[in-house]
Amino acid sequence: MTQKNTSQNVIWHHATVTRLRREQKNHHNSVVIWFTGLSGAGKSTLAHAVEERLFQYGFNTFVLDGDNIRHGLCGDLGFTDSDRKENIRRISETAKLMLEAGVITLTAFISPFRSERLMARKMMPHGDFIEVYCYCPLSVCEQRDVKGLYKKARLGEIKHFTGISSPYEEPDNPELAIDTGVFGLPESVEKVIALLRERNILPAGKIDAL
Amino acid sequence: MTQKNTSQNVIWHHATVTRLRREQKNHHNSVVIWFTGLSGAGKSTLAHAVEERLFQYGFNTFVLDGDNIRHGLCGDLGFTDSDRKENIRRISETAKLMLEAGVITLTAFISPFRSERLMARKMMPHGDFIEVYCYCPLSVCEQRDVKGLYKKARLGEIKHFTGISSPYEEPDNPELAIDTGVFGLPESVEKVIALLRERNILPAGKIDAL
Repeated sequence: MTQKNTSQNVIWHHATVTRLRREQKNHHNSVVIWFTGLSGAGKSTLAHAVEERLFQYGFNTFVLDGDNIRHGLCGDLGFTDSDRKENIRRISETAKLMLEAGVITLTAFISPFRSERLMARKMMPHGDFIEVYCYCPLSVCEQRDVKGLYKKARLGEIKHFTGISSPYEEPDNPELAIDTGVFGLPESVEKVIALLRERNILPAGKIDAL
Repeated sequence: MTQKNTSQNVIWHHATVTRLRREQKNHHNSVVIWFTGLSGAGKSTLAHAVEERLFQYGFNTFVLDGDNIRHGLCGDLGFTDSDRKENIRRISETAKLMLEAGVITLTAFISPFRSERLMARKMMPHGDFIEVYCYCPLSVCEQRDVKGLYKKARLGEIKHFTGISSPYEEPDNPELAIDTGVFGLPESVEKVIALLRERNILPAGKIDAL
């Protein structure tokens, strides 16, 4: 898009730095990797471990998760159905901007509803959304209870807690499903990296050399 | 932050890729450059031209402006005072995430109110917010009227239009003020780049060599 600066007869340009140019500079494509699963299933841990690996390859990455979203961009939202939906919408829009910025963007939110994950998927260009289902039996998540949230939910101190008092809708057809009760972290990271390689998001040569 | 995976006795780690590590990898610091000024003052054009230059240096950049925010992240907001404030808040939070991601983030919004620009500034770590006032007399902006908005505002077809029917509060003490009615685009870009160099956001050596 160009526009004419009438005061100086200079053609002014807009947005010359495109996603494609960024990807070429970065030597990798950008993508949104959407981790979903119960609290305690290992979404955030896996996302950060994948990020660490990608960073060591020299790639541009970012993780959106509760730590940097819930008190910031979505700090005004609660846990009603409409607020949860708006939460996912804003996260998706932010992920889309990061995608455009050439960043491999990993999101780690329970995102329990199919319709909202579908909304997120549809927001991205085709093929740029990879859904990774971190599966783990509720009993294992509850036993881990890293944040003590399940205990509070069982006591009724937290309302609408996914898996206890609010449903989790399993993905029908995620790009990847990982049973984090069975596979350890290194193996889980490998599965995600392998998928990115298959999909040509990472340059096979560079990865193989490392 | 570490957590114990009770099912496998593996220590799981969080967020090992920090802003500092990204900046070291990128060979430049990240920062938020906040362009403010009347519609038609050249904010978006200047932001994109600065971005192009930075990209040619090999740096990681992104421009947030009306084109990618108003129909996306802030598509639910109108132009009431509270919506304008929420608009700036979300943009600021997104810019903060980009900052953390190691990206030189340029925002181009009228952002007419001092209090909201101050809110944005206070959200960022000290020194990471650079306010660039694109100054241009209203008469010149109105004469340019690239988008035909001033004409509509004068006809009353657009309400609360900054400069016509809604105030623009000039920055008291911006890091940089550029009279875009006087300086051309290349000189304006130079001024921004020089400031980034002064502040050690860009590595002097690399820039000098290009």
